Amino acid sequence: MKRMLLKIAYDGTAYYGWQRQNNFITVQQRLEESLSRLLGQEISVRGSSRTDTGVHALGQGAVFKADFTIPEDRFPYALNSFLPEDIVCRGARLVDEEFHPQYSVVKKTYKYSILNDRYRNPLLDRYCEFVPKELDTDKMSQCCKYFLGEHDFKAFCASGSTAKTTNRTIYDLTVEKNQNIIDIEVTGNGFLYNMVRIIAGTLVDVGLGKIPVSDVEKIIAWGDRTKAGKTLPPRGLALMNIVYDFMQKKG
Amino acid sequence: MKRMLLKIAYDGTAYYGWQRQNNFITVQQRLEESLSRLLGQEISVRGSSRTDTGVHALGQGAVFKADFTIPEDRFPYALNSFLPEDIVCRGARLVDEEFHPQYSVVKKTYKYSILNDRYRNPLLDRYCEFVPKELDTDKMSQCCKYFLGEHDFKAFCASGSTAKTTNRTIYDLTVEKNQNIIDIEVTGNGFLYNMVRIIAGTLVDVGLGKIPVSDVEKIIAWGDRTKAGKTLPPRGLALMNIVYDFMQKKG
Repeated sequence: MKRMLLKIAYDGTAYYGWQRQNNFITVQQRLEESLSRLLGQEISVRGSSRTDTGVHALGQGAVFKADFTIPEDRFPYALNSFLPEDIVCRGARLVDEEFHPQYSVVKKTYKYSILNDRYRNPLLDRYCEFVPKELDTDKMSQCCKYFLGEHDFKAFCASGSTAKTTNRTIYDLTVEKNQNIIDIEVTGNGFLYNMVRIIAGTLVDVGLGKIPVSDVEKIIAWGDRTKAGKTLPPRGLALMNIVYDFMQKKG
Repeated sequence: MKRMLLKIAYDGTAYYGWQRQNNFITVQQRLEESLSRLLGQEISVRGSSRTDTGVHALGQGAVFKADFTIPEDRFPYALNSFLPEDIVCRGARLVDEEFHPQYSVVKKTYKYSILNDRYRNPLLDRYCEFVPKELDTDKMSQCCKYFLGEHDFKAFCASGSTAKTTNRTIYDLTVEKNQNIIDIEVTGNGFLYNMVRIIAGTLVDVGLGKIPVSDVEKIIAWGDRTKAGKTLPPRGLALMNIVYDFMQKKG
């Protein structure tokens, strides 16, 4: 039996998130169906991130076990001929038995994109949240430093989360503006339920002047969800990349 | 009666182009329906460009005549509340009787976008043509100069065109690469049927090495459609901007 790790990109607009569900179409289900047809056997995959309804991905990870002869470098092309248009396999590599789709994750990068303009732009609507009031990106950038390192991110976790601990480590958080598009990019060892969308919502409140820059440190320390910003909609969020431990060992 | 010029953006994916048709949904039809509901009277518009099925726009122009009291600066917001999600009014201004949606055009800018990467990207698919083989953008840039100025662009016109003359003037043509996205941007006094998509197809053939840079000048001179590249699909094309004569007089 071989074990293969796939790099999967998707436009999440049409899906009820990654994780298989009973009555709704999800990305995992479509991927499993396509793999099963390609390989002529029942395939189930395990993903590295449970992206929510409507969230996009460029670098989701998914692993499966099966017997097959298609070589790594041809595998994405073979699989893509079975996948729907809005799901694309962008990489495949064999991994050993120690690999685990969640525990082998070293860090993940998400991007939240905002269109900050007077009017909506129909060519960006699927992938950007629209904020018509002017955002002060200098202020947004200034509070990024408070998020870095290990913190209890309870204030940035939606209720209903089943996480054992709300401690997470953030390695990098940046705010970049190109023309009218503001990209918030965050890299961490893991993220709580809705955490990136609440961080983005908090940074938007800072950019609007609703939350002073200096309050952000306290909002993290207090651990009170009601003090942080709102959860922004899924359309602006994309899982960009995942680094696994075997990639680092190689270096 | 007032005469108002609107700046209209749309995701063309769901539409049979701009121009009203009998049995297909078009952008013009949806805009006229929305204006008629907003103003409580039958409104018809005239557009500045007949964008094809699936072609997008950020800066289409459309003019209508009616009696109404909504001021210019509020008009886009009022209209957007009636328009479908994939059509957005991004500007409105009153124009005088001399204004004509086609004859008052001084120049138009179109952009054709290409994803030049090993794999498709589902987050770019709606707005980029996908070219998996590597394109030499230096070569593509080198032949831009041959298009500049007034030429008979018969070689870059689809059959079935009803244009009286195939002479057009191109003011600017550039090829820019950002990461894996190549943008071909062209500004001219007007464009023949499918002209931008054929120019883009010809530049792609140059980038692939199928057409030598030095042949492009001859391809324009010969006026033979079969010597130019193929017509690229509509998804990569967007009407970016239109400059009208009254904008220049102001300066």
